[in-house]
Amino acid sequence: MRYFSTIGGKAELKSGGKRGSHMQIGMIEDRIVRLEELSASYLDRGIYFGDGIYEVMRSYGGKIFAIEEHLERFANGLSAIGIDGVERSEVRRRVEKAFEAAGIENARIYFHITRGSEVRSHLPRAELKPNFFLTVTELGDESLRPNGIAVSVYPDIRWKRCDIKSLNLLANVLARIDAEKKGCEEAILVDDNGFITEGAGSSFFAVVRGLLRTARLSANILPSVTRGYVLKAARKSGIETVEQSLKVQEARTADELFIAVTTKDIVPVVRFDDTAIGNGRPGKYTTQLIQEFKAFTA
Amino acid sequence: MRYFSTIGGKAELKSGGKRGSHMQIGMIEDRIVRLEELSASYLDRGIYFGDGIYEVMRSYGGKIFAIEEHLERFANGLSAIGIDGVERSEVRRRVEKAFEAAGIENARIYFHITRGSEVRSHLPRAELKPNFFLTVTELGDESLRPNGIAVSVYPDIRWKRCDIKSLNLLANVLARIDAEKKGCEEAILVDDNGFITEGAGSSFFAVVRGLLRTARLSANILPSVTRGYVLKAARKSGIETVEQSLKVQEARTADELFIAVTTKDIVPVVRFDDTAIGNGRPGKYTTQLIQEFKAFTA
Repeated sequence: MRYFSTIGGKAELKSGGKRGSHMQIGMIEDRIVRLEELSASYLDRGIYFGDGIYEVMRSYGGKIFAIEEHLERFANGLSAIGIDGVERSEVRRRVEKAFEAAGIENARIYFHITRGSEVRSHLPRAELKPNFFLTVTELGDESLRPNGIAVSVYPDIRWKRCDIKSLNLLANVLARIDAEKKGCEEAILVDDNGFITEGAGSSFFAVVRGLLRTARLSANILPSVTRGYVLKAARKSGIETVEQSLKVQEARTADELFIAVTTKDIVPVVRFDDTAIGNGRPGKYTTQLIQEFKAFTA
Repeated sequence: MRYFSTIGGKAELKSGGKRGSHMQIGMIEDRIVRLEELSASYLDRGIYFGDGIYEVMRSYGGKIFAIEEHLERFANGLSAIGIDGVERSEVRRRVEKAFEAAGIENARIYFHITRGSEVRSHLPRAELKPNFFLTVTELGDESLRPNGIAVSVYPDIRWKRCDIKSLNLLANVLARIDAEKKGCEEAILVDDNGFITEGAGSSFFAVVRGLLRTARLSANILPSVTRGYVLKAARKSGIETVEQSLKVQEARTADELFIAVTTKDIVPVVRFDDTAIGNGRPGKYTTQLIQEFKAFTA
């Protein structure tokens, strides 16, 4: 991994600034600066194109959960979009260094790598240096939803490679804004054929007659680390699973529903698009899976 | 429009930094900083989600071309994703101020507005302030391709609202990288049914037996300003037009092909996915349209 040497380092420019009386410029809000004076963060391909891959991890009681699985998915994502030269061991070292520096027991660790900074051009220069950025923040009580949440539905208008955890997330944001307007905490995405893919920021699960269902992994589904642990928890609990998408109507009439996401684990869904699920309270399979899941994180 | 008051202004944070011995942190490359010390550009929803709208304009001989059309599309984009409170007149004022400051006759003017900066959360805070960013750079000879270009084809894996000029452009970038590997200058995107939508960074046109064809505007097509002027040029030239998508095979056997894009105007396509178009040189309708188009920009 190569870096800009300093925070706010200057990005290399393709062509120089002043030419005669002309000056190439940048403008931030109402303020004009020379193009060369812009810090690399303003010229990041992450902002111009969403040209990068991100991860979110969490810790429980001072220990990062499933770090290897997250790092592997991250490496797969970088490879899928052709960002080369990033050492997985170096990413791990940085994640651990930052996590230790923060000293937060229950932390959310977010990081991304973008293809680099340059004057905007769809086609990247070959010699571009990837940018690394990370935050460690405290996970509050937002992760605790013992009584479950309400979810709404939204058309799945995302791109066709949702298996790649890229920075192109506007469709997810619009879905979440729509959910909020409906008083819901998550949007469940529905494809053109009426099948549920996943949540805007979570995996989606249903229990139908004792069978746990979730969509099969495909180009439309994020290979969620938490999803993997939920399926593992189900096997440990002796709950049968099937990886098959649900139609909206099947979700509405399911016995139990829940979402799963790194920062919140398993969250019961007690209301789906204005329909109460089961008796409107978290179901027994969901409760059992929450318990099983806790064992992985202890 | 509201702004951060300074370049590199500090973003407002949702929750404070130090709590006891804990510290929320950011990390840029290998360097750790307090979360509160991160400049707003690192916490921009543009980079986290591509949560913003952009425009590219150009000038000819010291005059910005089609500024009102671009500003209108920009306003429509902001409205489509619910970024409110941006005054169109203020955007215009900034564009003109920056353009004048640069003093570049043939300039490329890029700008975007994102929903704002905050600690990452899919759901934006209601009181978020949009961020404005702009560059003015010199248009080089890259816009001149009198002998035409070669294009390749790439699956259209973009999201389902390509009529919105958003910062979610990774699919376009991947298509361009693929085209470059094939020695081509643009990628022409093909949907699941084998129909051409548009170029990764351009509109796409064909001439078939004297008839000018391009895809009808829809959620899959950017309402390109240059496209509008090409159709206008065709009407002025007495060339019949039809807005109907082409199959890949139709493009391969077309009499003439070209792309159109703000920074390059009309560019003849003389090779399509390894097939020579016409006699392998720019065709007569394309040449005529290039001349007509010039009249608009004089």
